[in-house]
Amino acid sequence: MSNEVEVKKADFFEVIRERHSFRSYDPSYKMSEEEIRSLLEDAILSPSSSNLQPWRFLVIQDQASKEKLLPIANNQQQVVQASIVVAVLADLEGFKQAELIYGRTVDNGYMPEEMVKAYTARLAGFYGEQPERYHNTALIDGGLISMQLMLAAKARGLDTVPMGGYDADKFVEAFNVPANLKPVMLIPVGKAVGEARKSVRLSVDEVTTWESF
Amino acid sequence: MSNEVEVKKADFFEVIRERHSFRSYDPSYKMSEEEIRSLLEDAILSPSSSNLQPWRFLVIQDQASKEKLLPIANNQQQVVQASIVVAVLADLEGFKQAELIYGRTVDNGYMPEEMVKAYTARLAGFYGEQPERYHNTALIDGGLISMQLMLAAKARGLDTVPMGGYDADKFVEAFNVPANLKPVMLIPVGKAVGEARKSVRLSVDEVTTWESF
Repeated sequence: MSNEVEVKKADFFEVIRERHSFRSYDPSYKMSEEEIRSLLEDAILSPSSSNLQPWRFLVIQDQASKEKLLPIANNQQQVVQASIVVAVLADLEGFKQAELIYGRTVDNGYMPEEMVKAYTARLAGFYGEQPERYHNTALIDGGLISMQLMLAAKARGLDTVPMGGYDADKFVEAFNVPANLKPVMLIPVGKAVGEARKSVRLSVDEVTTWESF
Repeated sequence: MSNEVEVKKADFFEVIRERHSFRSYDPSYKMSEEEIRSLLEDAILSPSSSNLQPWRFLVIQDQASKEKLLPIANNQQQVVQASIVVAVLADLEGFKQAELIYGRTVDNGYMPEEMVKAYTARLAGFYGEQPERYHNTALIDGGLISMQLMLAAKARGLDTVPMGGYDADKFVEAFNVPANLKPVMLIPVGKAVGEARKSVRLSVDEVTTWESF
């Protein structure tokens, strides 16, 4: 339907319960560019530390690119079967975007210019002197957006699998990934076929401590 | 209502659009233990690398504990105003849980025992020899579950703010956090008051590359 974006609805609690990691996809299903963009629009609503948005996407869609990725991803067929593979990358120099991002915040009247100047200077001082301080923050923010992307896919009736099992060095080389962008994970997105492998979870009691250790 | 868990519904696309970072909370609103557990049950449905689930929660609920946290969190009032503060922690030794988790997978008939043994041995070899290899993975998984937790809160009509602005060393000391658990972020959860500060996003075009760099 032409107005799919406007009418789409999905129950949140169903989405989180039905999202599983699928490893087989219908290769004939192709997401439109509009659908891909809409998915990414949803993903970028996720929050980030100091709103620096250090996430970058490499969207791999062409058959030739997927074939290039296949051996790098240990020949896991989902990377060629899925409609797209989104490589989520963390910009380890994301703090350098502060002036651009906060400038727009001022332009929109969301923050006074003086506050933005002080904030930008503070970030530049903190990270500029020791850029490695930003490393973990960028990875965590990469995790945040990856989760939102996977849920947003499920809410559209699509499936995903978060992949860490690939050769990151070879990936960077094959796709000319700039040195400041660190791969967080690969996320194939498409129409799953068959069943997800069932998995277990540690209980809430096993992972929760109350008040203090 | 008594059967709130069964009947709760929320549109996914509204949840992601209405989730913002709120910094003021109604201090009179207290989540019940049932509500907190239900929120954490939803969060732990998120995926993790090799299903190792390296997330741990410290739930800070008592007024005295919140007051202890306040100076550590740069006196940001949300940590005392919100109903709870969930500290999301990443278990840097999460790979040591492989046998426990995969054992249950076998017990449930989800995986054959031989596959689990081979898989456990492979992980033990990979991470056991170089435990630092697991560091980034644990942090990224901490990001995944943090996002799912924030969305699950919003789907319940609650608000959150992901906080990186606190002294992690002092936090670890004050709450006796074990050495293997690295703080990912603090997430106050409660009934927000007032408006969220508006923010901007880089556009999809600014953060997306197609096929290859």
